[in-house]
Amino acid sequence: MSTEKLPTRAENYSEWYNQLIQRTELADYAPVRGCMVVRPYGWALWENIQQGLDRRFKATGHVNAAFPLFIPMSFLEKEKEHVKGFSPELAVVTIGGGEKLEEPLVVRPTSETIIGYMYSKWIKSYRDLPVLINQWGNVVRWEMRTRLFLRTLEFYWQEGHTAHVSAKEAEEETQRMLNVYADFAMNDAALPVIPGRKSESEKFAGAIASYSIEAMMGDTKALQAGTSHFLGQNFAKAFDIQYLDESNNQQFCWTTSWGMSTRMIGAIIMTHGDDQGLILPPKLAPIQAVIVPIFKNDDEKSKVMPVVERLFQELKSFRVKVDDREDLTPGFKFNDWEMRGVPLRIEVGPKDVEKDTVALARRDMPGKQGKSFVPQTQIDSQVAETLITIQAALFDHARTFRDAHIFDPKDYAEFQEVLQNGWAYSWWCGKKECEAKVKEETKATTRCIPMDQPGGTGHCIVCGEEAKEKAYFARAY
Amino acid sequence: MSTEKLPTRAENYSEWYNQLIQRTELADYAPVRGCMVVRPYGWALWENIQQGLDRRFKATGHVNAAFPLFIPMSFLEKEKEHVKGFSPELAVVTIGGGEKLEEPLVVRPTSETIIGYMYSKWIKSYRDLPVLINQWGNVVRWEMRTRLFLRTLEFYWQEGHTAHVSAKEAEEETQRMLNVYADFAMNDAALPVIPGRKSESEKFAGAIASYSIEAMMGDTKALQAGTSHFLGQNFAKAFDIQYLDESNNQQFCWTTSWGMSTRMIGAIIMTHGDDQGLILPPKLAPIQAVIVPIFKNDDEKSKVMPVVERLFQELKSFRVKVDDREDLTPGFKFNDWEMRGVPLRIEVGPKDVEKDTVALARRDMPGKQGKSFVPQTQIDSQVAETLITIQAALFDHARTFRDAHIFDPKDYAEFQEVLQNGWAYSWWCGKKECEAKVKEETKATTRCIPMDQPGGTGHCIVCGEEAKEKAYFARAY
Repeated sequence: MSTEKLPTRAENYSEWYNQLIQRTELADYAPVRGCMVVRPYGWALWENIQQGLDRRFKATGHVNAAFPLFIPMSFLEKEKEHVKGFSPELAVVTIGGGEKLEEPLVVRPTSETIIGYMYSKWIKSYRDLPVLINQWGNVVRWEMRTRLFLRTLEFYWQEGHTAHVSAKEAEEETQRMLNVYADFAMNDAALPVIPGRKSESEKFAGAIASYSIEAMMGDTKALQAGTSHFLGQNFAKAFDIQYLDESNNQQFCWTTSWGMSTRMIGAIIMTHGDDQGLILPPKLAPIQAVIVPIFKNDDEKSKVMPVVERLFQELKSFRVKVDDREDLTPGFKFNDWEMRGVPLRIEVGPKDVEKDTVALARRDMPGKQGKSFVPQTQIDSQVAETLITIQAALFDHARTFRDAHIFDPKDYAEFQEVLQNGWAYSWWCGKKECEAKVKEETKATTRCIPMDQPGGTGHCIVCGEEAKEKAYFARAY
Repeated sequence: MSTEKLPTRAENYSEWYNQLIQRTELADYAPVRGCMVVRPYGWALWENIQQGLDRRFKATGHVNAAFPLFIPMSFLEKEKEHVKGFSPELAVVTIGGGEKLEEPLVVRPTSETIIGYMYSKWIKSYRDLPVLINQWGNVVRWEMRTRLFLRTLEFYWQEGHTAHVSAKEAEEETQRMLNVYADFAMNDAALPVIPGRKSESEKFAGAIASYSIEAMMGDTKALQAGTSHFLGQNFAKAFDIQYLDESNNQQFCWTTSWGMSTRMIGAIIMTHGDDQGLILPPKLAPIQAVIVPIFKNDDEKSKVMPVVERLFQELKSFRVKVDDREDLTPGFKFNDWEMRGVPLRIEVGPKDVEKDTVALARRDMPGKQGKSFVPQTQIDSQVAETLITIQAALFDHARTFRDAHIFDPKDYAEFQEVLQNGWAYSWWCGKKECEAKVKEETKATTRCIPMDQPGGTGHCIVCGEEAKEKAYFARAY
């Protein structure tokens, strides 16, 4: 760890974010423009995210598979909106085995097309439906402005692709997976996300309707943290995904797709982190508790270390690390693990050994307020309880912050003002022109039209015309 | 499942393999030449392989990370042997975001170069060593002749890359990981593999020494099922991976790399499969036991199904499936699950309900010999024991087959003969000319020089000159 001080969030939010990621060894820049290396600490966090999601996917009947990285260019062209949306962002393989390829291959930016092609081969009858497949993998989008975890040329994600007999079933699936994402975000990542429908201009290229969960970052910007799309029969018709129904008639399937990516790591950093560094939610933290032995000489060491070793064994059901580095002071270690966001620090010094206690220090509550002394005999239950408490406190803290930065401005002037440091929750007529005006004048976009609506009607915050729904507006990553 | 009969292995081994994979829905051909789709049943098998390996990697101190898919062409050129070996097989991205790239990007065929570049940034001091990182991911090699799982343009694997302070440490790591692979292959995949050193002409492009585990397939061909390479300082010098030693001198690191891929699935299919289909080792099988209810009418159904449901609940600690498909006969289901290689079938009919028993049928022992009737109260322990028995029996069966097809021919004429239906274990002088002659005349190559050697010297089976080591020769996939 560098000993140089991290910039505070107030000083420079973006530098705080970039430096924090590199100094805590979550990720690093790759030698290829816009690509990242996810380092072991970051990948361990992603593995925990994967497990939390994968468990939920399997519980809702999904299975995993793997489809090719390369997609023939002609496939993308089969769905007109889709190719229009993705063609500016493609990486294209034109040479293979030393020879120019007859048809260039696109490195997948998303897999609706190639999966649609395979589904048309596999699906014959209503008995084959629904098909509920998820894929964990990497995709490439040639972005111009990149930022670690938030927007990189290559990123890691899961993409679910399902096929159904009816629009109703597919729509239910779209909602089910939106709810899975919201459940994961709230319960595992401690992010108080808002689920809702994307506007026409913000929806996925080729979808009938897109839904997202939107999270508020520490600088009040919004981050889209997961999306679920109802694709109607658009891809089924483009790729001829048909089935024979019970009356022996050919029917087109109804399909969905949904994805969550390594962006989620960016969301966790920017929602919970503080000026001391990361604060990781206990359910996902690669290290849930770190034990720091404290001693001044060999005599103290010989008393402290056996206790440390015993506690480490007793805490095997948690992800625990002992920091026994010889050449560093306890103070340095405290700062180091604070920066790395380990939720709980367990200090064991000679006095603790005497009194049969340990000190527990909560990462989310610096100083004395978050410190407690507990009997060694209760270590297992105390750690379990404290981790649950921290998980809940992170969520509450983030929700309080979010709610304090969502406004219901009375007119367009106030709307413009609140968007400088928060979100606006306002009536919107639904017209693209109003969205465009807002974007130009405030840099904010519609984030989502939430599922929970107040009912009734109001006046569009932009044009004043009648509006049937309220939407969230915010500047976004 | 198609009702058409699978070709037998004797009729057409290669067709048996291809059809079996597609009919059991392990994998399918992708619309891009030489690429495959790993379907849910195949991917579930791969996930179990991943877990078995990942657990062993973590137990030996390794952590996971993710490095970029794209590698600048210039990186490959830094290690001369490496680029010579891989340049004929590269897929190259020349267009990104609609524009021609200044420097073409290679889709990684393996990641020594880009990981070496990052290690040179991260490693400063002896305190940073060893670095023990593994990556799970996809790689691309532009192969001309492809076959599902065995050789595809894109495949899935793990690649470990480690850096050390000394040659000794790196050599120990190389052996450690070879042993991890052998342990996994033997204990989890039930493959009686032979670990050994690759010849100079067969080693990895850029390595000082390569080691592999070699498995014998059902047609007696060899398959290299995992490799571990001692890279010396070749990549450390090419990428300037240096550290400051305890005496404050700059030193180059010593590195290793090691990989196992989705080829392992091909090895499992061809080692254990029979003319009825797959036989999956219980430790890796996506479904360890299938319960097939048997009834002729609603009355019988109402007696059988509650027992099936209860047994299913009692077997929750295994990967169990109930086949309650309404429109298929028990006989059809038996064949279906036999083809899919489920190790154990549990039959529950009206008579079983009366007698409080179930029938257990072992996939590896067709007919009456492999069938037993056990009390329902003992289902959990009986399933556990039978799965262990099957796992051991598969290994024994494969080892017996292997040993019956390894020969120690007395002269070159016999050597040529045995290679038509087996392996030769023969003295070899180590010269490339002898390897080349064997390859031309028999299509066999040196597979490995095993770690276990008889000692002493002999005469090279090809040229008759003095030889210090024995090697395995075989035709190979």
